Amino acid sequence: MRYDFGSDNTAGMAPAALEGMIQANAGFTKAYGADDVTARAADQIRRRLDADAEIRFVFSGTAANAIALSMLAFPFEAVMAHHAAHVCTDETGAPGFFGQGLGLIGLPGLSGKIEPRAMEAILAEPEVGHRQPPAALSITQSTEYGTVYDEEELRHLIEPVKARGCGVHMDGARLANAAATGFDLTQIARLGVDVLVFGGAKAGANCAEAIVLFDKSLARRLDNRLKQAGQTASKARFLAAPFLGLLESDQWETGAAHANQMALRLAEGVALRSPFALAHPVEANAVFVRMPEMAHSRLNELGWACYRFDDGSVRFVCSWATQEAAVDEVIEAIAGLS
Amino acid sequence: MRYDFGSDNTAGMAPAALEGMIQANAGFTKAYGADDVTARAADQIRRRLDADAEIRFVFSGTAANAIALSMLAFPFEAVMAHHAAHVCTDETGAPGFFGQGLGLIGLPGLSGKIEPRAMEAILAEPEVGHRQPPAALSITQSTEYGTVYDEEELRHLIEPVKARGCGVHMDGARLANAAATGFDLTQIARLGVDVLVFGGAKAGANCAEAIVLFDKSLARRLDNRLKQAGQTASKARFLAAPFLGLLESDQWETGAAHANQMALRLAEGVALRSPFALAHPVEANAVFVRMPEMAHSRLNELGWACYRFDDGSVRFVCSWATQEAAVDEVIEAIAGLS
Amino acid sequence: MRYDFGSDNTAGMAPAALEGMIQANAGFTKAYGADDVTARAADQIRRRLDADAEIRFVFSGTAANAIALSMLAFPFEAVMAHHAAHVCTDETGAPGFFGQGLGLIGLPGLSGKIEPRAMEAILAEPEVGHRQPPAALSITQSTEYGTVYDEEELRHLIEPVKARGCGVHMDGARLANAAATGFDLTQIARLGVDVLVFGGAKAGANCAEAIVLFDKSLARRLDNRLKQAGQTASKARFLAAPFLGLLESDQWETGAAHANQMALRLAEGVALRSPFALAHPVEANAVFVRMPEMAHSRLNELGWACYRFDDGSVRFVCSWATQEAAVDEVIEAIAGLS
Amino acid sequence: MRYDFGSDNTAGMAPAALEGMIQANAGFTKAYGADDVTARAADQIRRRLDADAEIRFVFSGTAANAIALSMLAFPFEAVMAHHAAHVCTDETGAPGFFGQGLGLIGLPGLSGKIEPRAMEAILAEPEVGHRQPPAALSITQSTEYGTVYDEEELRHLIEPVKARGCGVHMDGARLANAAATGFDLTQIARLGVDVLVFGGAKAGANCAEAIVLFDKSLARRLDNRLKQAGQTASKARFLAAPFLGLLESDQWETGAAHANQMALRLAEGVALRSPFALAHPVEANAVFVRMPEMAHSRLNELGWACYRFDDGSVRFVCSWATQEAAVDEVIEAIAGLS
Repeated sequence: MRYDFGSDNTAGMAPAALEGMIQANAGFTKAYGADDVTARAADQIRRRLDADAEIRFVFSGTAANAIALSMLAFPFEAVMAHHAAHVCTDETGAPGFFGQGLGLIGLPGLSGKIEPRAMEAILAEPEVGHRQPPAALSITQSTEYGTVYDEEELRHLIEPVKARGCGVHMDGARLANAAATGFDLTQIARLGVDVLVFGGAKAGANCAEAIVLFDKSLARRLDNRLKQAGQTASKARFLAAPFLGLLESDQWETGAAHANQMALRLAEGVALRSPFALAHPVEANAVFVRMPEMAHSRLNELGWACYRFDDGSVRFVCSWATQEAAVDEVIEAIAGLS
Repeated sequence: MRYDFGSDNTAGMAPAALEGMIQANAGFTKAYGADDVTARAADQIRRRLDADAEIRFVFSGTAANAIALSMLAFPFEAVMAHHAAHVCTDETGAPGFFGQGLGLIGLPGLSGKIEPRAMEAILAEPEVGHRQPPAALSITQSTEYGTVYDEEELRHLIEPVKARGCGVHMDGARLANAAATGFDLTQIARLGVDVLVFGGAKAGANCAEAIVLFDKSLARRLDNRLKQAGQTASKARFLAAPFLGLLESDQWETGAAHANQMALRLAEGVALRSPFALAHPVEANAVFVRMPEMAHSRLNELGWACYRFDDGSVRFVCSWATQEAAVDEVIEAIAGLS
Repeated sequence: MRYDFGSDNTAGMAPAALEGMIQANAGFTKAYGADDVTARAADQIRRRLDADAEIRFVFSGTAANAIALSMLAFPFEAVMAHHAAHVCTDETGAPGFFGQGLGLIGLPGLSGKIEPRAMEAILAEPEVGHRQPPAALSITQSTEYGTVYDEEELRHLIEPVKARGCGVHMDGARLANAAATGFDLTQIARLGVDVLVFGGAKAGANCAEAIVLFDKSLARRLDNRLKQAGQTASKARFLAAPFLGLLESDQWETGAAHANQMALRLAEGVALRSPFALAHPVEANAVFVRMPEMAHSRLNELGWACYRFDDGSVRFVCSWATQEAAVDEVIEAIAGLS
Repeated sequence: MRYDFGSDNTAGMAPAALEGMIQANAGFTKAYGADDVTARAADQIRRRLDADAEIRFVFSGTAANAIALSMLAFPFEAVMAHHAAHVCTDETGAPGFFGQGLGLIGLPGLSGKIEPRAMEAILAEPEVGHRQPPAALSITQSTEYGTVYDEEELRHLIEPVKARGCGVHMDGARLANAAATGFDLTQIARLGVDVLVFGGAKAGANCAEAIVLFDKSLARRLDNRLKQAGQTASKARFLAAPFLGLLESDQWETGAAHANQMALRLAEGVALRSPFALAHPVEANAVFVRMPEMAHSRLNELGWACYRFDDGSVRFVCSWATQEAAVDEVIEAIAGLS
């Protein structure tokens, strides 16, 4: 079975990430994040975001997002997110676990982008004691359906939320792919995002994400919070090292740019050579193809791992590791399905 | 500052662990633990334990222990552990977080070993609705004070617990060090331990521990449980790979044996050359020295990181990476304090 | 403002409930449920259900339901319920709070009754680690839309659930109203319900519900569970006394029968005399009327409290205390709206 | 068995409390606390405290205290309390359940009063990420050992806590008994208490306590919080009515004064006529007697329910309902034990 397009977590570590790990291995160092590798990696992130922020590295996006949401909403409140957002559909209820029953309100919207009017309708509902009112908004950038919000779109979502005193979380598991399309990372803080999850795993690290708190008032005893939640690395340098490697080498950016290009090549090939339609605009590193179940099964039988999503289309994801030849092979296979 | 003896998590990855990581990096593979590296690492652990068991790799000992305890006790029950056990003192209340308020009952005992009569007194107390009765026992092997239970001692703790229908957890963060003293790993399942945390980080991995469920009935939807708890690795091969490297090379054992030898050398040096007494028997990789605060401060000033523990003594820990020369240097420094 | 039809919790205590409270007040008695009033009330419930069961009295339906669900599903699992069920819509996420993030899966179905095929489709979905699979079914009897399941309907829901090893919860906040329509309470245990919430408040008590565990294996340390959850009454006799009064006098049944009759009278009056259609069959004590917002507002202005529901209709609820004259008055008012 | 002295929750409702319940029963009224009885009861409490405060009525002291603590400390923080405080010993870990793992730090002190220096030593400890640092102080007034803090003592506890930015909770389950000794209720807000639990059950209500938030910033979506926690009364008037009866009649005060007098009579009788020593000063409504186990057993055999406490003494509690004749009888029985 070939997993090239199954997800962007089927790829290995990018060369600079692995090299970062190897570099970090020498000698003895302080544990629990008080080391130089951790400090330098955080600086690299702050530089890219052009913002002062509290930064901590954690092991998984699930935990990073769930902990972030638990900072923005009490258990008796809810977080609004696109109904297809990872926090709603793919984290086994982690926001409720870390948030002690915190609710999620699924919002509609085309191709993974939240429809502002739907969100505003939720915000406009009168509050009652027997429901969980919205206390925060969660935005994924780039989205689960491979699209990228522009600043104007983000502003239209964030402004009414902030105006109501609610918080904003950005799930940046694929932030590198958004950045590679031209999305300006320095706008994240300016737009009013309170907590950003700055993605590492899908950008070429092993398992590492960074929690970025622009609103430092949320950081009260952050180290205690993470330790209790099982997200403190004892040998912390190894959690930060792949990040540092990616960021100092710019492979965080170049890998994502490559992934996006490969997705575009794949999308064009499918559009030109197959009878199947693309389900969503291809703006980042994922391609969603509308194909009948029989075609999907046949593709799996041919050895290509790929999965059907909630919208009914089949997803193909590219990464820093995707090879042009593989893209051409899978196009060939898809074209041959008809 | 020199961190050689500050903890066993100030060391890097052992060569075989890093090599395992590098080896695992090639190509695309299934995510979320369905890969070959993960399967082989689990097999290596099962072979050492000579037991069939469900095994999962997680990122931190804090999470591994807390999740294990939450399998053995309801929120309205408690877990008995040595009052100096890591779960009681050093995990920021993680058992209560993952266990939704689960209680801990601290037990006394010399040098980190639980006193069986104290435990039996707790078990004998009449149950009342307004307290959290004991539902499980947590044992650390080797202990937080560097001692190692023998089988007979474990049997005296485990039998009365199992006879009452309670569960048993073993925190094996330093299990390798216990094994290196001759503790027979194949007895763990036979003695009745239900859940073992098989330590990786302190044995030379980066951040990785294995949860080993001998009682498979506890494994109901284990993957969902771990995912929700933020302990599922997307790129799972990298969580298992350092373990695999350590286990296939036997560096898991040889590194621990080296660490124990270094601790012994350190202990002998302190005993012979310094005026300070050892606080606990040196059976694994840690040495606890009774020294006045002024001596401790002076040692820190000389550049040696080491910490005072709850029993009032100062701890020095050795690892796979500890160098004989460093041991001799720190002995020299300690001897010179008087 | 007149609250006669706003809900069935706008009524006071039925005479026998208050009398039960007064009777229970004499002298000193054991606290925390070890008293005679509590024992007799539990016996009355067991007699009605014709089943041996562990029974405890708690203060609120929210807690009773949430605790019941937490017995049937782990935090990383989900409970299926009608999307309009009280547990889904009106308890501020209590199942997730008491169940540490436990999920809810909303099911469709006409007039508050779960559509069996929709439920079976959920059960048939392949399990994946990143979602919360269904572990239990929650059924409300009578339903939130005033309908009553017959035994055949319940069997079609419960059998496939039990066949998968899942548990079944029945929210009987208005069980008395179902019983008054002829629903046979002795079938609840036989149909396979594991946990029943036997309603008191809406049947004429003050604030009291009973948790009935047919599956006694769920009752492990139940008193500890309830105490920790803040649902143990110190002066427990007063929690059970209103129940005892209602049950020994049969006002639990006669009050509900009266409520149902009043609802029928109201429904007939609306159907005959107003231009508005009934939204749901009137089988228990609630009447749902489709009326435009202007009519609803006008009715409120006339002094009649009543609320619009998620299905868009306006609800009128009758109770043991509803007076025939009030029914006729509100019919008059509704008829005059057109 | 006679339960006169077993606890102050073995008594019934005081006449005014029951009368309040009966009075509240007439007619229909708004549910969920928007009723007049609830409003008037809250006003009565505010008047006594001479403070503006958010007030809500809940069903149990366990829940009231646990919810209060969860407002003052995050899960990764701890609350300091006397080691014999009800929250530490008698609530089955409820603070950890409602507070998602929130920790408790038990403090020493004579006769249930916290020793200020012990508390200050905890506050002075350097914070580390792997422990739960103190974020709040919980004080019981009157204490679990029947003593009463004076204002000066409270000031010495509260000031250093507030100076560190920590919160203060007062468990007033027996606040009426403290007030009856002359403790000035209007000082509670002035001393800096943030959340008070104003006791009802032990003062003659059935099961009802009031949560009083002097710091209104803690009240964010308080109704949602309580609903989710299963502490919202649908028929709320019945939760407030006994309180209202007690407060409008002043039986809240007079009942407590009577209880205290009875305790004094009991204490004097024991001191004069028995060979047993009093274990603690008798300042409120409880008497603790040091007696050997054989004497205690004999007293139980004679039909007097009373319990041995963690300090080894046997407790006798008086209430509004305690009769002088019963006091004399139990003195006689105790005197006869020698």
